[in-house]
Amino acid sequence: MNRPYVRLDRDDVAVLLVDHQAGLLSLVRDIDPDKFRNNVLALADMARYFRLPTILTTSFESGPNGPIVPELREQFPDAPFIARPGQINAWDNPDFVAAVKATGKGQFLIAGVVTEVCVAFPVLSALAEGYEVFVVADASGTFNAMTRDAAWARMEAAGAQLMTWFGAACELHRDWRNDVDGLGALLSNHIPDYRNLITSHTASRP
Amino acid sequence: MNRPYVRLDRDDVAVLLVDHQAGLLSLVRDIDPDKFRNNVLALADMARYFRLPTILTTSFESGPNGPIVPELREQFPDAPFIARPGQINAWDNPDFVAAVKATGKGQFLIAGVVTEVCVAFPVLSALAEGYEVFVVADASGTFNAMTRDAAWARMEAAGAQLMTWFGAACELHRDWRNDVDGLGALLSNHIPDYRNLITSHTASRP
Amino acid sequence: MNRPYVRLDRDDVAVLLVDHQAGLLSLVRDIDPDKFRNNVLALADMARYFRLPTILTTSFESGPNGPIVPELREQFPDAPFIARPGQINAWDNPDFVAAVKATGKGQFLIAGVVTEVCVAFPVLSALAEGYEVFVVADASGTFNAMTRDAAWARMEAAGAQLMTWFGAACELHRDWRNDVDGLGALLSNHIPDYRNLITSHTASRP
Amino acid sequence: MNRPYVRLDRDDVAVLLVDHQAGLLSLVRDIDPDKFRNNVLALADMARYFRLPTILTTSFESGPNGPIVPELREQFPDAPFIARPGQINAWDNPDFVAAVKATGKGQFLIAGVVTEVCVAFPVLSALAEGYEVFVVADASGTFNAMTRDAAWARMEAAGAQLMTWFGAACELHRDWRNDVDGLGALLSNHIPDYRNLITSHTASRP
Amino acid sequence: MNRPYVRLDRDDVAVLLVDHQAGLLSLVRDIDPDKFRNNVLALADMARYFRLPTILTTSFESGPNGPIVPELREQFPDAPFIARPGQINAWDNPDFVAAVKATGKGQFLIAGVVTEVCVAFPVLSALAEGYEVFVVADASGTFNAMTRDAAWARMEAAGAQLMTWFGAACELHRDWRNDVDGLGALLSNHIPDYRNLITSHTASRP
Amino acid sequence: MNRPYVRLDRDDVAVLLVDHQAGLLSLVRDIDPDKFRNNVLALADMARYFRLPTILTTSFESGPNGPIVPELREQFPDAPFIARPGQINAWDNPDFVAAVKATGKGQFLIAGVVTEVCVAFPVLSALAEGYEVFVVADASGTFNAMTRDAAWARMEAAGAQLMTWFGAACELHRDWRNDVDGLGALLSNHIPDYRNLITSHTASRP
Amino acid sequence: MNRPYVRLDRDDVAVLLVDHQAGLLSLVRDIDPDKFRNNVLALADMARYFRLPTILTTSFESGPNGPIVPELREQFPDAPFIARPGQINAWDNPDFVAAVKATGKGQFLIAGVVTEVCVAFPVLSALAEGYEVFVVADASGTFNAMTRDAAWARMEAAGAQLMTWFGAACELHRDWRNDVDGLGALLSNHIPDYRNLITSHTASRP
Amino acid sequence: MNRPYVRLDRDDVAVLLVDHQAGLLSLVRDIDPDKFRNNVLALADMARYFRLPTILTTSFESGPNGPIVPELREQFPDAPFIARPGQINAWDNPDFVAAVKATGKGQFLIAGVVTEVCVAFPVLSALAEGYEVFVVADASGTFNAMTRDAAWARMEAAGAQLMTWFGAACELHRDWRNDVDGLGALLSNHIPDYRNLITSHTASRP
Repeated sequence: MNRPYVRLDRDDVAVLLVDHQAGLLSLVRDIDPDKFRNNVLALADMARYFRLPTILTTSFESGPNGPIVPELREQFPDAPFIARPGQINAWDNPDFVAAVKATGKGQFLIAGVVTEVCVAFPVLSALAEGYEVFVVADASGTFNAMTRDAAWARMEAAGAQLMTWFGAACELHRDWRNDVDGLGALLSNHIPDYRNLITSHTASRP
Repeated sequence: MNRPYVRLDRDDVAVLLVDHQAGLLSLVRDIDPDKFRNNVLALADMARYFRLPTILTTSFESGPNGPIVPELREQFPDAPFIARPGQINAWDNPDFVAAVKATGKGQFLIAGVVTEVCVAFPVLSALAEGYEVFVVADASGTFNAMTRDAAWARMEAAGAQLMTWFGAACELHRDWRNDVDGLGALLSNHIPDYRNLITSHTASRP
Repeated sequence: MNRPYVRLDRDDVAVLLVDHQAGLLSLVRDIDPDKFRNNVLALADMARYFRLPTILTTSFESGPNGPIVPELREQFPDAPFIARPGQINAWDNPDFVAAVKATGKGQFLIAGVVTEVCVAFPVLSALAEGYEVFVVADASGTFNAMTRDAAWARMEAAGAQLMTWFGAACELHRDWRNDVDGLGALLSNHIPDYRNLITSHTASRP
Repeated sequence: MNRPYVRLDRDDVAVLLVDHQAGLLSLVRDIDPDKFRNNVLALADMARYFRLPTILTTSFESGPNGPIVPELREQFPDAPFIARPGQINAWDNPDFVAAVKATGKGQFLIAGVVTEVCVAFPVLSALAEGYEVFVVADASGTFNAMTRDAAWARMEAAGAQLMTWFGAACELHRDWRNDVDGLGALLSNHIPDYRNLITSHTASRP
Repeated sequence: MNRPYVRLDRDDVAVLLVDHQAGLLSLVRDIDPDKFRNNVLALADMARYFRLPTILTTSFESGPNGPIVPELREQFPDAPFIARPGQINAWDNPDFVAAVKATGKGQFLIAGVVTEVCVAFPVLSALAEGYEVFVVADASGTFNAMTRDAAWARMEAAGAQLMTWFGAACELHRDWRNDVDGLGALLSNHIPDYRNLITSHTASRP
Repeated sequence: MNRPYVRLDRDDVAVLLVDHQAGLLSLVRDIDPDKFRNNVLALADMARYFRLPTILTTSFESGPNGPIVPELREQFPDAPFIARPGQINAWDNPDFVAAVKATGKGQFLIAGVVTEVCVAFPVLSALAEGYEVFVVADASGTFNAMTRDAAWARMEAAGAQLMTWFGAACELHRDWRNDVDGLGALLSNHIPDYRNLITSHTASRP
Repeated sequence: MNRPYVRLDRDDVAVLLVDHQAGLLSLVRDIDPDKFRNNVLALADMARYFRLPTILTTSFESGPNGPIVPELREQFPDAPFIARPGQINAWDNPDFVAAVKATGKGQFLIAGVVTEVCVAFPVLSALAEGYEVFVVADASGTFNAMTRDAAWARMEAAGAQLMTWFGAACELHRDWRNDVDGLGALLSNHIPDYRNLITSHTASRP
Repeated sequence: MNRPYVRLDRDDVAVLLVDHQAGLLSLVRDIDPDKFRNNVLALADMARYFRLPTILTTSFESGPNGPIVPELREQFPDAPFIARPGQINAWDNPDFVAAVKATGKGQFLIAGVVTEVCVAFPVLSALAEGYEVFVVADASGTFNAMTRDAAWARMEAAGAQLMTWFGAACELHRDWRNDVDGLGALLSNHIPDYRNLITSHTASRP
C-alpha cells in the first residue's frame, strides 16, 4: 500500500522547465518574488551542475505571457526549446514529448508556472505513461496557497513526488565526496544562510 | 496504487452550483469576499463559455439562507433550478439527481457553500455512484481554513479531484488555438494580473 | 482504491468526549479559546439534540490536568463517565471500551484534548477494531498547527474521517424538514453569523 | 498636542490618482489583486458619485510601467490627465500642481501605486503646502506590508490622515437621507457582503 | 509632549454602543465571529456590572443593516436608544448627543461596527468637544486589519485611548477587594482560560 | 516635538516584574509559550547580571491567578516581594511604590502579565510621576496581538519606550570590553541562534 | 486500504538523531528557534527517560555545518556516534546502518536537520527495508513550511507516521501509573503551560 | 505639531552600514533570507549608483559575530571601515563618528543588524545631535516582527523617518530623466517583478 522509495538517479533524470515566462511570473503569489526568482535560478544551476538534460518550453511568447526568463535561455543555449503554438498541456505537444523521450531518461524533475496547469498537466501525463515524476515545488508558482495545495493533492494522488531544488540536489549528489566544492558553490550561491556559514567558517580558519 | 489521470473533457462535463445563497455567503470566511465573489462569477462565466450544462440548486431560499446570488440566476436562465424543500445533501433530492443524470455527463464540476456540507455531501454521493468528480475549490467556501482542510481530506480520500476555476478552464480548453480571444476574455475579466498583462501588451504593440 | 462514502447515521452513532479538562485546555493553542469553547459546547448540544449516546472520560482529574469542564458534566448527567486511573489511550481502559461497546453503535464521533494523544490514540484503536470513526476536528485541540497536521495525517491514513461539529450535525440531520426549529436553534446558539441571519430575517418578515 | 478633527467636506475635496498603471500594478503585493482592483474602482466610482474633481497622472506610460488602467481613463474622460515626463514625485510636475490648484480645493484624497513613493511623495509635498491630505490606503498598494507600514508612519507623522474608500464615502455623505439609493448602489457594487445583505433584505420584503 | 495618564473613573464614564446590528455584523472580518460576539457581550455585561450609563444607537434598522443585536437591547431595557434616521456619524444626531450629555459624564467608552466609520466618527467628534474618549477596540470590528489599523491611527492621533473590554474593566475596578466575586464572574463568563483557572482552583481546594 | 534620546543607564535602572504568575501565564497568547518563558527568564538573568535592583509583585497568589513563577522567586531571594492584597495597578499599592522609590533609581524596566493591565497601569503611573519608563515588551504577554497593539499605543503615547530584553541588555552593557564572557554567556543561554554561532566559532578555532 | 495501527513499543524502539549541528541549525526557519531548541532537547530527554537506544550521526562537522549540538553529545556519552565522511543519506553509511541494526529494534523515531534531506532520506531507506518509521516532526526542521509540507507528503506516502515528541512520549508510556513523577518531570521541563499547571496545582494543595 | 517634509537630498546624504556580519545575519528572522540579502545588496548598489559616501562598521569580526558580508567590503573598497573594538552603539566609537562627520553630510541613511540595537542606537544618537536620519528598514533585520515593531516605535518617536531602499532611491533620483538607464538597471537587478516588466516590454517592441 505504501509507495516504494524511488530515488533520484543522476544518470536517469531530465529536467523540464515549463512556461517560466516574464508575463506569467506576475501571476505567482504563493512565493515571494525574491525567493521564487532565486529558486528558479537555483534549479537551473543545479541542472547544469549535474549535467542533466534539460528541456525548455513556453506558451505564446509573443503575447501577454511574455518571453521566457532570459537567464534560463542563456543557461541552456543548446537545450531543446519548444515554443508551443497553443497546447496548454506541454505533453499535448508532440515536439515536446519527442524531445523528452529523446533524452532516454525515466525520471523527470518538473517545474513551471503556474503550478496547477503548466506543471500539473504534464506531470499527470508523464505519470500516466509510467515515468517517475518529481515536482520541484519551490521552483513552481501560482496564484495563492489554496490553489497550490489543491494542485499538490492532485499530483500527489497520481503518484508524483513533491520535492524542492535543494532536496533534489542532495538526493542527486549522494555523497559530498563526489565534489565538495561544486555542491558547496551551488548552495552558497542560492542559500544565503549557507553562504554565511561558509563565510564565517572560512574566516575562522587559521 | 496511484490514481490514473482523469482529465476534464468538455463533452462530458456538467457543472453543479450548490447553495450560493446571499445569506449563506456571510458564513464564508476562508476566502476573502472580493476574491470569492470573483471566483464564483468566473466559474459561471466559464460554464457558459464552454456551454457546459449547469444545474442550480438552493436550500430554503425563503428563510435566513437567503435567495440565490442573482447573477447566477441571470447567467443561467434556462438551467434546471432545484429549490430543495429540505434535503441538506442535494443528492438526496430526486429532482436534483434526475436533472444531473439528464445531462448525460459523467464528469461533474461541483462548487458551493459551505464546503464541508453543501459541496462535500453531493461530491461523496456522486463518487459513490461512480461519477468522476472535480471540486472547484476556490468557488466553494466555508467557515475557516481548518474546516476546509478537513473537508478536502474527506473528499480527496473518496476520489474527488481538487481543482480551481482557472485550472478547470485550462484543462477544458486544451489548446489556445481553439479560441484565443474567448479564453483571453474569460481570464481578463477575472484575473486582474492577467488583465494588466493584456493591457500592457496591447499598448506596447506598434 | 478510493474510500467508500461512509455516512453518519444517527441511529448508529455514539459520541466519545475525551479529556476536555480545565487544566489540559490551557495547552490548546491551535484554536482560539473563544472559538474552541464554543465548538466543544456545540458538539455537546448536538449530541443531546440528536440523543446520541455519549461517553465522557478523563485522565487524572485530581492532578494538574484538572476537572472535566463542568458544562459537559452537567449536560450529560446520566452518561457513562470513566475517570481513567492512568491509561493515556482511553481505549486501553476496559471500562471505557465496555461503555463504548454497550452503546451497540458502529460509528463514533470522537473529540478531545490533546488531538495527537487523547483523540488520536482511541481513534486508531477503534479503527483497528473495525469501527467507523469520525474525528470532530474543531472540538479537538492541541499545542499548535504543526502538531495537529501531523495528527490528522496519522488518523486519516488509518481510515478516520475528519469532520467538524457543524458538518456532523448536517450529515446526521439529513433533511431540514425533520425539525426546522431544532436544528435552527442549534445553529443559532453556536454560529454567530447564522444567528445574525436569523435575526435579520425574522425582523424583516411582515 | 492632539490633532483636531478635520472632516472631509464634499465641497472642498479633490481626488488625485497617481500611477495606477498596468505594469506597476504587478508590483503590488500587500493587498490581494482581486481586492485591490475592486478598491481602486470603488474609489473611482465614489469620486464620480460625489462629483469630486479628479486628477489623473502617470509616469512613463510608454515604458515598462505600462498604460493607466483603462477603466480609470474611461471613468474620467474630462479629467486633467498629466503624463509626467519624468518627475517621480507628481508634485514636482508644475502641470500637475497647476491642475490640483485649479480645483480650488483644500482637501485631497490621494491614492496610487506604489504607496511609499507615488503616494507618499505628493502627500508629503501637499502637506508641506498646508493642504489637508487624506490617504486612501486601500486603493494604494506596494511591495509588502513592511514597506506599507513604514510609508504610513512617515505620512502619518507629517499630518496625513489614513482612510479607506468606504470610510471616505461615509464621511463625505454625512447622512443617508441625502441619497439612500445612490450610496446603497455604490456599496452594493463594491462590498460583496453588503450586496448580499441587500439581496436578502429585498427578497424578504413582502 | 507626552499624553498625561487619563484614567477611567467609574463615576465619570458612559458607554456608547454604536450600530451593533445583525446585518452590519456580517461585514466584520478583522476579528473571528465567536470572539467578536463574546467581546461585545462582555462589554455589555461590564457596563451593567459597573452600572455605567449606556446609550444605544442604530442606523436604518429597517433596512439591510438589520436590527440591533437582541441581547444588547435586552441587557439595557431602560437605556436611551436612538434609532438614527440617517446620520452616519452618531454625533451628528442631536438626540444622541443630548442623551450622551444627559449622562453628565466626561469619559466615554465607545464601541461599534464598523470601526472606521460608526466608531471613529463619534470618537473624533467627542474628542473635538473636549471629552476623554476610550475606544473599546475588541468590541469594535471592520472589514480587515488594514482598515482597522488606519482607523486606529486616525483616532489615536486625535487623542483617543485604545483599550479592550478587559483592560477597561480592570481600570474601572481598581481593586479586587471592591468585589472579588463580581469581577471574577465577569471574567469567568467571558474569558475561557480564566474560567478554566477558576474551575481548576476551586476543584483543588480541600 | 521629537522625543530626546533617553538611554538606559545601569546605575539608574530598577526592574519591576509584575504578576508573572503560573495561572495568569495561561492567558498569554500573543507570544508562543516556549519563547515567552525564555524571554522572562532572560530578563531575570539580565537583571541579576547587571545587579539591577529588582522588585517582584503579585496579585492574589492564593487564588486562580496562581503563585509566582518559582524561578523568579529563586532568582531574587532578597528582592522586595509585594503580594498585593487587591490593587490591580501595582502603583496603587503603597508598599510597592515605597519599594520602588527606595531603589533611588529614575529609570524602570517593567514587564508583566497581562500587558494592557499589569504592565500598562504601573507604566502610566510611573510616567505620570516623571520617571523614565522602558517596557520590556517581549517579557510581557497578553491575550492576542490586537490587545497588545492597543496597549503599546497607549503606553507609547504617554512616553514609554518599547524595548526587548536583548535591546535593553545591549544598551546597559554599552561596550563588550566591559565583560565579554559575561554578556556572551547571557546571550548564549537565551538566544539559540547565538549559542550556535558560539558553538561553531569555538569549534573552528585551532 | 487503510494503514493498520502500528503503535510505538518501548521495547522495540530506537532513536536516530541526524545532523543536529550548530551550523545547520541556522537553516531552520519553519519553527521558531526557542521552540525548536526545546523540542530537540525534549526528544533527547525522552529518549534517555525511556532508555531507548539512541544513535547520533553528523555530516562534515569540521566544515560549515558545524559540530553537533553539545547537549546532545553530553546526553548520550555512550551512544554510537557516526560522523559520516560524506554520505548525505545516513542510511548510505554502512557504519550507521550497522549501528542501527545492532540495536535489534524494529521501530525508529527519527529526527534531524533538514527535514527533506537528513530526515527524509533515511526515513525512506528504512521504510524500504521494512522497518516501522516514526518521524518526530517537531524535532526536525527546515527552510520553510512549503519545504516541510512537501517532505511530509513524500514520507507519509511511503508509510512513515508523523508524530511529535510529546505524542511519542505518551504512546511509549502507555499508563501514567508506570511512573507519574518521571513523565511529569519530562513534561514540566519542556512544556511551559504544563509546568504552570503543576505549579498552580501544587500550590493549591493544602 | 506635524513633522515637516524633510526630503532626501543626494548632495547631503551619507550611508551608514552597521554590522552586516555573516554570523549576526543568522539572527535575522523578521525578513526572509533571500529577500533580506537582496535588500542589503540593493542598498549597496544604490549607494554606489548615487555615489553616496558610505561608511562600514562591524563589531567583533574575529568572534562569533563573523566577518562582514564580503560583497559589501568589495563594493566599497575605499570606504572608511571601522572595526569597533567593543562599543555596541557605533556612535560611541570616536573613529566612526569622525568618519561620519568627515563626510560633511547632514542626512544619513542607516541600515544594519540587528534593528533594535545596531541600527536604533546610532539612529538615536545621530538624531540627538541634530542630524536628519532615515532608517532603511528593509535592509535592517532582527529576531522577529515584535522586536522590529518596538524598535520602529522608539526610532520614530525620536524623529527618524522609516524608509526602504526603493523609496530612498526614488526620492534621491527625483526625475527619471536624470538617468533612465541607470535607475532602470538598479531596479531590474533587485526587483524581480520590475525586471519582468522590462523583459516583457523590451520583447514587445518592434
